[in-house]
Amino acid sequence: MIKTSRPKSRDLIMDAMESILNQDSFEVATVDAVIERSGVARGTFYYNFPSKNAVIHALARRAAQPMVLRARERLSNDAPLSEILTDIAQGITDWNQQHPKLGRAVLSSTYDERGVPAPSDPNSPESFRNFLSEVFLMSQQRGEIREDIPAMNLSLMFTGMLYQGLFMWFVRPEAANLSLWAEQSTSLFLEGVKL
Amino acid sequence: MIKTSRPKSRDLIMDAMESILNQDSFEVATVDAVIERSGVARGTFYYNFPSKNAVIHALARRAAQPMVLRARERLSNDAPLSEILTDIAQGITDWNQQHPKLGRAVLSSTYDERGVPAPSDPNSPESFRNFLSEVFLMSQQRGEIREDIPAMNLSLMFTGMLYQGLFMWFVRPEAANLSLWAEQSTSLFLEGVKL
Repeated sequence: MIKTSRPKSRDLIMDAMESILNQDSFEVATVDAVIERSGVARGTFYYNFPSKNAVIHALARRAAQPMVLRARERLSNDAPLSEILTDIAQGITDWNQQHPKLGRAVLSSTYDERGVPAPSDPNSPESFRNFLSEVFLMSQQRGEIREDIPAMNLSLMFTGMLYQGLFMWFVRPEAANLSLWAEQSTSLFLEGVKL
Repeated sequence: MIKTSRPKSRDLIMDAMESILNQDSFEVATVDAVIERSGVARGTFYYNFPSKNAVIHALARRAAQPMVLRARERLSNDAPLSEILTDIAQGITDWNQQHPKLGRAVLSSTYDERGVPAPSDPNSPESFRNFLSEVFLMSQQRGEIREDIPAMNLSLMFTGMLYQGLFMWFVRPEAANLSLWAEQSTSLFLEGVKL
């Protein structure tokens, strides 16, 4: 019984966190608030997740899953990198525009209280940076892109550019065009700035 | 008398902050600690700076000044963008390697407690992103680089790539080669990833 109820508790916790984040803010979404909203026991929470941020990361992975599946399918169909990257960048910005509070929480959860990234699972096979690194590695093996920069570094550089746009948009939504940012970042990443 | 003593208090405050940050950490460097170390009155502190972060930003600007002057000189001598950017990227990483605690404080000061950037003076003519934007604008006017991406966006994209390397280095210094990161980021930014 414990085994079959486990995935259900996990979903209850994630759904409670998602609903609190969409209605309120990152600060309000404490472990206590999630436990209360989800109705699970404290022990059940910690059995499924080590921390608040772990729940948020799981939400981000759940949200990214359709995009990841689409990209994997395109990769196996030999779609060009430009097409795959455009879809990924647009997918990230679209999702953030549809879930601005949740998106902000996801960004917040990747930084500690001093604004320095606290990657909880840098080597998790599920992490987005690893997925993106895999995309670049396949593209390098196909001979599409340069090989002198490791695929993981390319992954971090591309997300670094995208994140700046998200940051600007969170701080001054009226001044930032997130879709245009995604388009420009992708183009710069592929082609560079030089004429 | 007040007028001539003002720059001196400002320097005393900045020096005190610098020494606390180099010895201790971002958390220890409170306004109270800076006041105590510098020996200035509380009123004098707030006459010169609105906040702790404002002092750290001033320190970052003071540190960046030689690099900015060098870049401006090269710009006026029509040096190619690649040379100027390489120097800037290397200057930033070198300075962080020489002042890791201060560097981490500078990064921390640009984010609020939720890890979202809180740019105190996005339009300050002294801000680094503005300086870099000016470099790209001149390069665009010379016809060296693409004009379809605004110079300010280019500035943010380039710093976004550099920051990712700094973040990695702060979190796992043993796993990151900051100088190589600066070189690779600059090259990717200029040439793009496509073959």
